[in-house]
Amino acid sequence: MSEVKAKLLTQVAEPMTSSGNKVTIVGIGQVGMACAFSILTQNVSSEIALVDVNADKLQGEKLDLQHGSAFMKNAQISASTGMNGNSEIAGILPDERGDAIPNPQQERAVVLMRIEKIQNFSVSAGSRLIVITAGVRQKEGESRLDLVQRNTDILKGIIPKLVAQSPDCILLVVSNPVDILTYVAWKLSGLPKNRVIGSGTNLDSSRFRFLMSQKLGVAPTSCHGWIIGEHGDSSVPVWSGVNVAGVRLAEINPSIGTSDDTEKWGDLHHEVVNSAYEVIRLKGYTSWAIGLSVASLASALLRNTYNVHAVSTLVAGEHGITDDVYLSLPCVLGRNGVSHVVKQILTTEETQKLQASAKLMAQVQAGIKF
Amino acid sequence: MSEVKAKLLTQVAEPMTSSGNKVTIVGIGQVGMACAFSILTQNVSSEIALVDVNADKLQGEKLDLQHGSAFMKNAQISASTGMNGNSEIAGILPDERGDAIPNPQQERAVVLMRIEKIQNFSVSAGSRLIVITAGVRQKEGESRLDLVQRNTDILKGIIPKLVAQSPDCILLVVSNPVDILTYVAWKLSGLPKNRVIGSGTNLDSSRFRFLMSQKLGVAPTSCHGWIIGEHGDSSVPVWSGVNVAGVRLAEINPSIGTSDDTEKWGDLHHEVVNSAYEVIRLKGYTSWAIGLSVASLASALLRNTYNVHAVSTLVAGEHGITDDVYLSLPCVLGRNGVSHVVKQILTTEETQKLQASAKLMAQVQAGIKF
Amino acid sequence: MSEVKAKLLTQVAEPMTSSGNKVTIVGIGQVGMACAFSILTQNVSSEIALVDVNADKLQGEKLDLQHGSAFMKNAQISASTGMNGNSEIAGILPDERGDAIPNPQQERAVVLMRIEKIQNFSVSAGSRLIVITAGVRQKEGESRLDLVQRNTDILKGIIPKLVAQSPDCILLVVSNPVDILTYVAWKLSGLPKNRVIGSGTNLDSSRFRFLMSQKLGVAPTSCHGWIIGEHGDSSVPVWSGVNVAGVRLAEINPSIGTSDDTEKWGDLHHEVVNSAYEVIRLKGYTSWAIGLSVASLASALLRNTYNVHAVSTLVAGEHGITDDVYLSLPCVLGRNGVSHVVKQILTTEETQKLQASAKLMAQVQAGIKF
Amino acid sequence: MSEVKAKLLTQVAEPMTSSGNKVTIVGIGQVGMACAFSILTQNVSSEIALVDVNADKLQGEKLDLQHGSAFMKNAQISASTGMNGNSEIAGILPDERGDAIPNPQQERAVVLMRIEKIQNFSVSAGSRLIVITAGVRQKEGESRLDLVQRNTDILKGIIPKLVAQSPDCILLVVSNPVDILTYVAWKLSGLPKNRVIGSGTNLDSSRFRFLMSQKLGVAPTSCHGWIIGEHGDSSVPVWSGVNVAGVRLAEINPSIGTSDDTEKWGDLHHEVVNSAYEVIRLKGYTSWAIGLSVASLASALLRNTYNVHAVSTLVAGEHGITDDVYLSLPCVLGRNGVSHVVKQILTTEETQKLQASAKLMAQVQAGIKF
Repeated sequence: MSEVKAKLLTQVAEPMTSSGNKVTIVGIGQVGMACAFSILTQNVSSEIALVDVNADKLQGEKLDLQHGSAFMKNAQISASTGMNGNSEIAGILPDERGDAIPNPQQERAVVLMRIEKIQNFSVSAGSRLIVITAGVRQKEGESRLDLVQRNTDILKGIIPKLVAQSPDCILLVVSNPVDILTYVAWKLSGLPKNRVIGSGTNLDSSRFRFLMSQKLGVAPTSCHGWIIGEHGDSSVPVWSGVNVAGVRLAEINPSIGTSDDTEKWGDLHHEVVNSAYEVIRLKGYTSWAIGLSVASLASALLRNTYNVHAVSTLVAGEHGITDDVYLSLPCVLGRNGVSHVVKQILTTEETQKLQASAKLMAQVQAGIKF
Repeated sequence: MSEVKAKLLTQVAEPMTSSGNKVTIVGIGQVGMACAFSILTQNVSSEIALVDVNADKLQGEKLDLQHGSAFMKNAQISASTGMNGNSEIAGILPDERGDAIPNPQQERAVVLMRIEKIQNFSVSAGSRLIVITAGVRQKEGESRLDLVQRNTDILKGIIPKLVAQSPDCILLVVSNPVDILTYVAWKLSGLPKNRVIGSGTNLDSSRFRFLMSQKLGVAPTSCHGWIIGEHGDSSVPVWSGVNVAGVRLAEINPSIGTSDDTEKWGDLHHEVVNSAYEVIRLKGYTSWAIGLSVASLASALLRNTYNVHAVSTLVAGEHGITDDVYLSLPCVLGRNGVSHVVKQILTTEETQKLQASAKLMAQVQAGIKF
Repeated sequence: MSEVKAKLLTQVAEPMTSSGNKVTIVGIGQVGMACAFSILTQNVSSEIALVDVNADKLQGEKLDLQHGSAFMKNAQISASTGMNGNSEIAGILPDERGDAIPNPQQERAVVLMRIEKIQNFSVSAGSRLIVITAGVRQKEGESRLDLVQRNTDILKGIIPKLVAQSPDCILLVVSNPVDILTYVAWKLSGLPKNRVIGSGTNLDSSRFRFLMSQKLGVAPTSCHGWIIGEHGDSSVPVWSGVNVAGVRLAEINPSIGTSDDTEKWGDLHHEVVNSAYEVIRLKGYTSWAIGLSVASLASALLRNTYNVHAVSTLVAGEHGITDDVYLSLPCVLGRNGVSHVVKQILTTEETQKLQASAKLMAQVQAGIKF
Repeated sequence: MSEVKAKLLTQVAEPMTSSGNKVTIVGIGQVGMACAFSILTQNVSSEIALVDVNADKLQGEKLDLQHGSAFMKNAQISASTGMNGNSEIAGILPDERGDAIPNPQQERAVVLMRIEKIQNFSVSAGSRLIVITAGVRQKEGESRLDLVQRNTDILKGIIPKLVAQSPDCILLVVSNPVDILTYVAWKLSGLPKNRVIGSGTNLDSSRFRFLMSQKLGVAPTSCHGWIIGEHGDSSVPVWSGVNVAGVRLAEINPSIGTSDDTEKWGDLHHEVVNSAYEVIRLKGYTSWAIGLSVASLASALLRNTYNVHAVSTLVAGEHGITDDVYLSLPCVLGRNGVSHVVKQILTTEETQKLQASAKLMAQVQAGIKF
């Protein structure tokens, strides 16, 4: 201890190291950092641990947040690769930040090599919430489903080590394809299903409400609509529930969402599906909206609010689905994760779409090498 | 469970009952409710338990907060008198809300009768922070010190029962005379000194900064000045530390705070001392500023920020004080309560005032019947 | 200017006196102060002017808020009775704080005397929003409609003077009976109808959602339901729109809200109607929930959000109503006040209740002496 | 208007388009977007206009923010390049996003070509605050001063067009070298000096306080210290003002900040100076801390708080400086920009460093081609 400190301060008791509200962000690409920054600036948590394999970027992001900590209610920021001798191996993971690796076999070899280097994630110890954004990012044109095995390999190396440090945590998976990777994380974690959640269609629903707000001139938070099912191309808009102040648009326009609708409200859903592709095409990645979406989930989970959000949850038993697959449904979220699933009243067509997604998930899952 | 609920929701897991951030407010007069409302509206905690002996008012305040819970991030509000058969005994405690009791002997008898009726404070179980605002309120003209024994009797009936339900809590005493009552609460609680704190001169310092801001045209949060010592009449302004942007006013005006000062900056401290009396004279009680002051302390304590606040702490060993008394000094606050005391460099006169307050405290304390 | 200030600061430009976001609160009883404190602590505005006839209480409330201004982002607080020689007439208005005036005739004479003393409300000049909570408060057992003329007399003395100082303001009336008094304020103000609004059933709807949340275990902000019509006894719950995640409870339980419903959901509405009476019986007045409700409206109006809230608006032309009366309907709120009214699809019974309220309003209005 | 909208909503009045609190961000690189996101998530403003020459990225960032608008109190986001026929010229500006232009002459030609294409910045009309982050970014190893002329050329094309749309705005310059570019912006704008401000050493001071907090175990907001002068290498730490709770560290350690200090507190300043280089080396750019720093300034300016921040201001007349140059000093900020400058008491050495920076600025300024 410095002499100035000794002369300035009398110690009364050991400071406590934890806020009791710690969040770990795994993966610090644009998505992970937007999650961290949204959580900090909106005061959802005051303690964030960052985990990534890129030691340099990790140190840079940690410093950059710390330099602003006085503007974020004195938030505590920590970071670690979880490896000894960080510097030598920094950046070897082929990630979104552009390292070129000749072919998939070679890439997988690098990943496996990295996994062995990780000692532990003690930096994340005692987290209430762990947000997984790590993973090879979806490239333009690549289907979400193609990414599964590559990302499973990554999750195998990190999920058990994370859960070992925070056995009471909730896992919130953001990496894509999110529904299958949440299933993978659930399997790898050994946690009860209520504590393993995917960010799912919370973002899709938010995009839908924004588009609806533009069409009606009403605030997005007063435009109600739910997108459920698989996050992405095959998501399902539940038109029967779309309403403003309890007035169902389907009662005003019975053909809403169908091909018969002359006002083409169905285009809103197409735009939602296309949003991620469009934003990636324009700016190279998505970040702000997914960061805010994750912060909204973190707020419900950490503050124990029992708000309803569309998140990816184990849906076996709902809507005639029997397979152990994760898909988004409206869920009640609190400090114990998902406490309830809302049983929406779906049309036959909507149910069939959900069941088809479930079947597809189950098939892909069957092929995953754990 | 209602049939509608059964048809609407599938239970996945038991909801968790606690947010991990629970605050109990003991005493729901104007001060206690201003504390509760400040904590809720500023999102310092999302879970509040109210405790008071007046069952009707307690139920009224609980309902009134609950009716607004949707505007406070879905905060959870609970309340209890801690007694069985609330209704029959509600209101028997002579409190600030105006019940007339003929004489002190009779009053003390009523208090003791009430203490026996309290079963437990299970409503407060698992609190991180317990704010004590209960007590007979200071009347116009009454010295703070006269209130001690009456309030000690009340604290004897409640502190041990509160600590039994929340052994890891921090106790924050607001009831007046706050310094002695914090000492009393510490003695009654059996908690380590770092976890028993008095709201002390955090409010006096805030009032000083506001008056300074009025004189200079600079925001109160950019006006720095510390009032320490006993909360109230004998508090001590530390003129050497008064500054704006690190510019000490004492360097500009060496006689600042003394009787030689032609600009009469010392009047600011007199105004601070007079503030509580003045506000009580004008509106009958103080509420908003003390509520906000307590919420600022709660924020530092719950969020583990290590901010420095002037709060009442056990000062034996500081500034030549040897008695076990509580007085306000700048303290570093975190989830473990007071972790450090800042050792200010005081003038001989300032030190003498502190020591005189300490002596006075020790004398009064010697006469308390525990 | 003090010498210290002169030596400490170089003036570069005149400070601006207004934040551009000023809110005036007229009437500083429990309701007015809860509005002010909710607006300040939730950062809806950083500049509040308080107006009341009780000079002492006014000064006390102003000081109490100012002493906490450092905890409210350095909010600016001002206050004035609008009269010269405040002290001599302070407290002569028979108000909620308990002055006894022998009989109504005498009381009215006092009010009229007071009106003549008011010079101007320059303290409120340039307000974006003026919240009217002044008025004789409803006593236990007194019907809302009985209060009209007494409060009209008060509004006559203040509305024109307020509008003269803030011609671009939005008037938000909270005083009861709110629907008729909003009509009165509209008439007295000469402002366009979109800029005169009553707090109406925004609070009733909030209470309904809280009760619904208790029954379902879902956060109030995820429980959707609208109470419309007259604030108070004859309000109308729109059962068709009650939903969670777009699932209408009426589809699960077709008899919901009717006397045939074995689960007695209709009791929730009865409880809402009874809430104000119950809270007044228990704690003597309502404050927190109405304060928060008003702050939520202020946020939508000042931040230009286009959120939908149930507020009292001129309903002529809606639901077959032809009279110029104010009743609550879901309205889109922005910086121009009410931009749109949501046309709910009501049952015949719901429409009839609204029309009956409208008729009753029109009759009472016909008897008002302006 | 869609038929659904017509059936759902009755228009009462035209919505107002502005919140009265509009902020325009010019330049949407990592810095500009971190500013925008910090302002939105911390509710400093609810209306942001983005301006940039890269039409694709602009559209992508706008959509990404809009998709999250429901999580940011329904903020309004707009964006425009200010040019007709955006698509054909998008991306022609050589900017930080990596376009390679063979040599400086060629680059300047491209910039001038672009300037002629800009029609107007109507998207920014009526802004209260305009944040300038546009400009060619500092490359690793490049001195700040080398960037001046290139960025002056850019500012010439945009400042007058921005001020034409928002004559009452405050200009806040963030682009580097910030002190000279703020001078340039002031010259180009024709605005009074109090309304043209550079983000200056507000960030340096924040970094200093964080480092101090690490050394002492006290929250950064309770660690007080000011870095003034030129943002960057030649900034000046004012050791006499460094304090915790009014206790000056220089009184505890008289050699603090000098080469005689065995505890090497001076290293904190070296680390501050090195911070930007270090973060850029590690993650490629700085973003979060500068974004938060700018949001803190925006909050003081828009909310009219009169907080003191170290920002770049016209310093002629202060500390013996006679040239018209911009350097950072502690300034009182409100809705009229800089209302006062705090006159710190500096050592001879500190004053000499400031004067040397001023001389250097004046020399560079003399060579700028306007």
